[in-house]
Amino acid sequence: MSESWKLVYEGYDPEQEMLREALCTLGNGYFATRGAGEETDAVDDVRYPGTYLAGGYNRLETPVADRMIVNEDLVNFPNWLCLSFRPSGGDWFSLDEGEVLSYRQELDLLSGVLSRDLLHRDTEGRETRVETRRLVHMRHMHLAALEMTITPQNWSGKTEIRSAVDGSVINSGVARYRQLNSVHLEPLGTEQVTDDTVLLKTRTTQSEISMGMAARTRVTIDGKDVVAARETDSRDDYVSQTCTVAAEQGTALVVDKVVALFTSRDRALSDTGRAATYEVARAGSFSALVKSHVLAWKQLWRRGDIVLEPSDGAQMIVRLHIFHLLQTVSPNSIDLDIGMPARGWHGEAYRGHIFWDEIYIFPYLNFRIPEITRALLLYRYRRLDEARDGARDAGHRGAMYPWQSGSSGREETQVVHLNPKSGRWIPDKSRLQRHVNIAIAYNVWQYYQTTGDLEFMLFYGAEMMLEIARFWASLATFNAGLGRYEIHGIMGPDEYHEEYPGADEAGLKNNSYTNIMVSWLLWRAQELLDLLPETRREELTEAIGLSADEVSRWDEISRKMQLCFHDDGILSQFEGYDDLKEFDWDGYRKKYGKIGRLDRILEAEGDNTDNYKLSKQADALMLPYLLSSDMLGQLFERMGYPFEPELIPRIIDYYLERTSHGSTLSGVVNSWVLSRSDRKRSWDWFMEALHSDVADVQGGTTREGVHLGAMAGTVDIVQRCYTGLSIRDNVLWLRPELPEALGSIKQRIRFQGHWLALEITSDHLHVTCEEGGSGELNIGVGGEVHRFAAGDSQDFDL
Amino acid sequence: MSESWKLVYEGYDPEQEMLREALCTLGNGYFATRGAGEETDAVDDVRYPGTYLAGGYNRLETPVADRMIVNEDLVNFPNWLCLSFRPSGGDWFSLDEGEVLSYRQELDLLSGVLSRDLLHRDTEGRETRVETRRLVHMRHMHLAALEMTITPQNWSGKTEIRSAVDGSVINSGVARYRQLNSVHLEPLGTEQVTDDTVLLKTRTTQSEISMGMAARTRVTIDGKDVVAARETDSRDDYVSQTCTVAAEQGTALVVDKVVALFTSRDRALSDTGRAATYEVARAGSFSALVKSHVLAWKQLWRRGDIVLEPSDGAQMIVRLHIFHLLQTVSPNSIDLDIGMPARGWHGEAYRGHIFWDEIYIFPYLNFRIPEITRALLLYRYRRLDEARDGARDAGHRGAMYPWQSGSSGREETQVVHLNPKSGRWIPDKSRLQRHVNIAIAYNVWQYYQTTGDLEFMLFYGAEMMLEIARFWASLATFNAGLGRYEIHGIMGPDEYHEEYPGADEAGLKNNSYTNIMVSWLLWRAQELLDLLPETRREELTEAIGLSADEVSRWDEISRKMQLCFHDDGILSQFEGYDDLKEFDWDGYRKKYGKIGRLDRILEAEGDNTDNYKLSKQADALMLPYLLSSDMLGQLFERMGYPFEPELIPRIIDYYLERTSHGSTLSGVVNSWVLSRSDRKRSWDWFMEALHSDVADVQGGTTREGVHLGAMAGTVDIVQRCYTGLSIRDNVLWLRPELPEALGSIKQRIRFQGHWLALEITSDHLHVTCEEGGSGELNIGVGGEVHRFAAGDSQDFDL
Repeated sequence: MSESWKLVYEGYDPEQEMLREALCTLGNGYFATRGAGEETDAVDDVRYPGTYLAGGYNRLETPVADRMIVNEDLVNFPNWLCLSFRPSGGDWFSLDEGEVLSYRQELDLLSGVLSRDLLHRDTEGRETRVETRRLVHMRHMHLAALEMTITPQNWSGKTEIRSAVDGSVINSGVARYRQLNSVHLEPLGTEQVTDDTVLLKTRTTQSEISMGMAARTRVTIDGKDVVAARETDSRDDYVSQTCTVAAEQGTALVVDKVVALFTSRDRALSDTGRAATYEVARAGSFSALVKSHVLAWKQLWRRGDIVLEPSDGAQMIVRLHIFHLLQTVSPNSIDLDIGMPARGWHGEAYRGHIFWDEIYIFPYLNFRIPEITRALLLYRYRRLDEARDGARDAGHRGAMYPWQSGSSGREETQVVHLNPKSGRWIPDKSRLQRHVNIAIAYNVWQYYQTTGDLEFMLFYGAEMMLEIARFWASLATFNAGLGRYEIHGIMGPDEYHEEYPGADEAGLKNNSYTNIMVSWLLWRAQELLDLLPETRREELTEAIGLSADEVSRWDEISRKMQLCFHDDGILSQFEGYDDLKEFDWDGYRKKYGKIGRLDRILEAEGDNTDNYKLSKQADALMLPYLLSSDMLGQLFERMGYPFEPELIPRIIDYYLERTSHGSTLSGVVNSWVLSRSDRKRSWDWFMEALHSDVADVQGGTTREGVHLGAMAGTVDIVQRCYTGLSIRDNVLWLRPELPEALGSIKQRIRFQGHWLALEITSDHLHVTCEEGGSGELNIGVGGEVHRFAAGDSQDFDL
Repeated sequence: MSESWKLVYEGYDPEQEMLREALCTLGNGYFATRGAGEETDAVDDVRYPGTYLAGGYNRLETPVADRMIVNEDLVNFPNWLCLSFRPSGGDWFSLDEGEVLSYRQELDLLSGVLSRDLLHRDTEGRETRVETRRLVHMRHMHLAALEMTITPQNWSGKTEIRSAVDGSVINSGVARYRQLNSVHLEPLGTEQVTDDTVLLKTRTTQSEISMGMAARTRVTIDGKDVVAARETDSRDDYVSQTCTVAAEQGTALVVDKVVALFTSRDRALSDTGRAATYEVARAGSFSALVKSHVLAWKQLWRRGDIVLEPSDGAQMIVRLHIFHLLQTVSPNSIDLDIGMPARGWHGEAYRGHIFWDEIYIFPYLNFRIPEITRALLLYRYRRLDEARDGARDAGHRGAMYPWQSGSSGREETQVVHLNPKSGRWIPDKSRLQRHVNIAIAYNVWQYYQTTGDLEFMLFYGAEMMLEIARFWASLATFNAGLGRYEIHGIMGPDEYHEEYPGADEAGLKNNSYTNIMVSWLLWRAQELLDLLPETRREELTEAIGLSADEVSRWDEISRKMQLCFHDDGILSQFEGYDDLKEFDWDGYRKKYGKIGRLDRILEAEGDNTDNYKLSKQADALMLPYLLSSDMLGQLFERMGYPFEPELIPRIIDYYLERTSHGSTLSGVVNSWVLSRSDRKRSWDWFMEALHSDVADVQGGTTREGVHLGAMAGTVDIVQRCYTGLSIRDNVLWLRPELPEALGSIKQRIRFQGHWLALEITSDHLHVTCEEGGSGELNIGVGGEVHRFAAGDSQDFDL
């Protein structure tokens, strides 16, 4: 089974470097490292093994929100991978010169170590074997390390090894952003601090976060120091040490480079330079670091693995997705103030902005390491005042979180965007995706349901949910003619519909997803108020000035929300959807092949997606994705609409036929909503979503950073959808329905403080409550609820 | 009863300004403000209303630990209080010129507002009434506000009002530190950002924390803007706006100044200047800010007040102490990374260093807002790696927290200190107070007992306790002759004993306090391991490499710890105490009067406190302070020593007679340990401790910052000692014994998630379980355990 733990590339392919490095990005929740990329040109001789790319929480915000051209959000940390060698008098090692005789790159998911093994012949005929291993430490989060083993195959002689830290990196990983400002670091100088250690200090230009990066380099043969001389080149934004050693044919020279990174946002330090210097001084050797790093990963996998047997090839990719999730947010993130960026820290796409991807990501974390979810929800809580301002500035009450945000929590959505197909800048209304607020409230509720963490709810969660509920209530208007409440002027998740054809104003009316979720939320908000102990309820309602009248209005709105239907019961994506033209799917597929980005195609033709019954991604289909059929039924009944469960498959088919699937998230939702009605199609969508990054199905977007939402979504399909795992009324329900291609699913999940081991096959379910606090759990199987205490175990035939 | 909420000073007394301002310091857990002080001379014309002193978490560490001369730990934020006026052509208002006709200063503890009301006649005979109110906002933690109402009594005319922010402040609040570096801010410039708002940016010199402070100034009469002209003076480190208005006899001019402060360590911001500018722009008027500020205080008092009736004058001071505790650490602190400095943020003494004061402070917080304790324990957890390094560097295992630390968590204790009496610099061994490690472990355990917060224990608390246990076990050596374990080379809490007379090495052997607490800790550490669920225990022991053998050794040490006795059963403060000379207490009292600082007196005489049976503060007496008589008995039995409960009063008397009480903490411990055996003496010590700051009993130390440990200690005497409140085996025991001077104690406490209301008189106890989560509480009264659920209430005769 070891293959299912390894992502392997055989053969050197310069064309694929950017993609491979994105997929092989290493991280630990604090910072991330990837190699290659074009920034490496900044220092000409460190093309290999690459550069250090994206850095966690140094996101900056737009100085002026509507001048999107100067958006500066994701800052690259200094490049620490710079490590090269040359036989005295020769050229610095480069894969671009000479010949690569063999090449193998392997990302070991189990240990979190990336290694390369290559044989190279330079232009002078010297053959050298070069093996590297690198890691970003999962326990000691400020450390990263690189080991390079150089074995001359047919030569000997004096050799120079140069190890550098380069602060001249710029943001240039995304071609279409290159006209934006790309310089985000201001040099603060470099120095040699001890014999084998150099230090670089730099500062971000806008946010004034200073950083210290110290690098320690040692060269040994058989564990013995062999450096004959060291020379330090210390410039303003770049510092290197060149070590002279005697290389001998057949003898392995081992270069051990350890770096420490600190920023002025870190806790528990005096200044970043000193902190980095101390940290690197006390760090062990590369091998010692591997040991503690692997232990940290072993513990993560003990909580986080999902075992699929057989899996039709899905196992390794599912683990790769888990791996990247846990590298983006890890136990190391808990004490930081980071959000969940759409592309992780794996690339510069979307400039590190925070959207709503967390709604796809939290379910996995909730059931494994809910402390991480809690920290990510606190990230939202810290920006609640900003969201309140956002609502007020827009003329509403409560809290309106922005569609895209950076570190300050203000709205950062662009107001124009470039269509590369037409070369035109197009007005962008996407900030009207107010549904991000639904996602945040939904996530708070889900976290509480899974963990039972009442303290979080009392102190943070409740305030967010109530203020978001208040925002929606303030947005809803009463239509006296209909006797119903309506929501106007917003967009649903589907980004192909920003407004009505020919309309003066942006936004749509009565988006079904929004209206139903708002009804759900306003109902939950009342449940929440009942849940709060009196002291806290009083404090909170006093502090936010929430009156009983306001809450009654929430109740009324939640019961009288307007829904629109067409075609005999199809829930309309929004009011007026029925009036739009049908789209010529076959014609466009024939003409363009890939039509994922119909917006660009139509705009280039002078047309507009607004005119058609077409969607980029799931919109109405988000409803059966987020809410159970039972809950949907209860909501329809509450709002006074008839509900037939059989309608759901019809709605699913209707919209699947009219979606271009221009978002990687679509496949996840499609697989999910089809899982009960059409297992084969569900599996096909699952496999498509699963391969979206490893196969770079969007043709180029993965090299700009992996799609974390889709990665997490596929994991969640295995975790919750195929196992039928859901929480209702304090009961954890299991209703497995495995696709034929899947033999079994084994996983451990945490529910309300207890650890449960689940083993599921197509006809059998085994549940063990491994341990937990006091108290018992309710687990529902086949309509019956069973009580489990620590040590209990039970088998169920399905 | 309103007097019991107010600290009032009538009459102007320049001599008392520093003391008054220390006692009237305003804060919100994020930053603090006090007026007057000598820094005001930096800008000559803003003598009144004063300067802005000490800022939360900008503590810096010593670049090189042993060069104490350059210690730079506590940084003053820019002074924002600068606000003055002058009739055109006249002098700027100054209390030092002309005559103060009446003066009243009032700190309202209930609302957290400091006000002054004065009538002044200038040298030209102009009489003006000046009223100010100021606050540091308890809910919007980045805001502070000042309102000044100027009413000309006998003049009219054009008047200039100048409002400034001054970044040229230095550290000069403690006379004996003035030879240390006092400049900690590097100016980054100032600007006028809107018509009524100016911005100052600055950066700390060592830690490179940038700060933005924006100030908005408005002048109104009857709510109408009356500024005829504004002039901005923008220098590098100082910016002011001068507003010209027409003042009229008998008409009140209201100046409303609101400032916002952000630092680059803050979460959720882009850059400090922009954040401060936004914050001040969206802040309401002074009156609106008062309203939300008062509400926040009301909510704090609802949780935090303790009502004493009658109280012999203690009530107001107890509230003042609670007030300063909650200003130093508040709900606003939870998300920061701050420790509990000995003097709060009220002054520069001890340069903001963290000692062990939290052991006196946490009990109050545990029973009211345990989220704060949790945050303060996390401050320690973040410095666990540093403590591990400290142990390793000293040749030990586990974690050794330093006696004094700054933001990095490294040892910052001075190695020499100045005796102002002799003018000599004296070697200082006080870092040998390793008992700070006992305090940290003890605090973790207490927090867990009070809250039942297992998650904290699993993730953070356990690791600290186990690593500290390991440190003590590694320090303990086996004396084969005695068949017992010993601890050498450390100091107890009593700072008058650093080493044996004439010894070559610093430190003492077998300090009783240390040895008994270590036995307690090694026993608890085993209990803790049993408490951990298996998954987590495995993770943790794997991660820190803890073996079963090591734990068995802990068990053995805890059973075989060496204790020393003399004088027929008196527990020796340390081994060899009996060989020291008795001290001539009467002679020295006669000669010197106050002998609190005998160390300075004896050193000046060429003698040394090490030579005598004398203590500065409680040492062995800490044992009955921290551990119940039952627990002490169990420990003696476990270690194989006879224990007679009657011995405790003898030990108390023995050491009380030999203590100079040179620490404000002594009174607290003395009052506590006497509370059962001698209620009258206990009350006297309580009253002495209670007055130590308001009366500045140490003659000058309070103006350098209040003594938070003693403040909290007095509150805890009322909270736990006189009520006999303790937790044992998951039961909250109540065994009230009120001093005669106290009529009743009413308080609400939180225990394991429930709120309890307690009303206690000398013969009656009323307990109400107001609300709580699910589950019941065990409450023990008079030897019996009673079960309480939410809503239950019960009366007990005592």
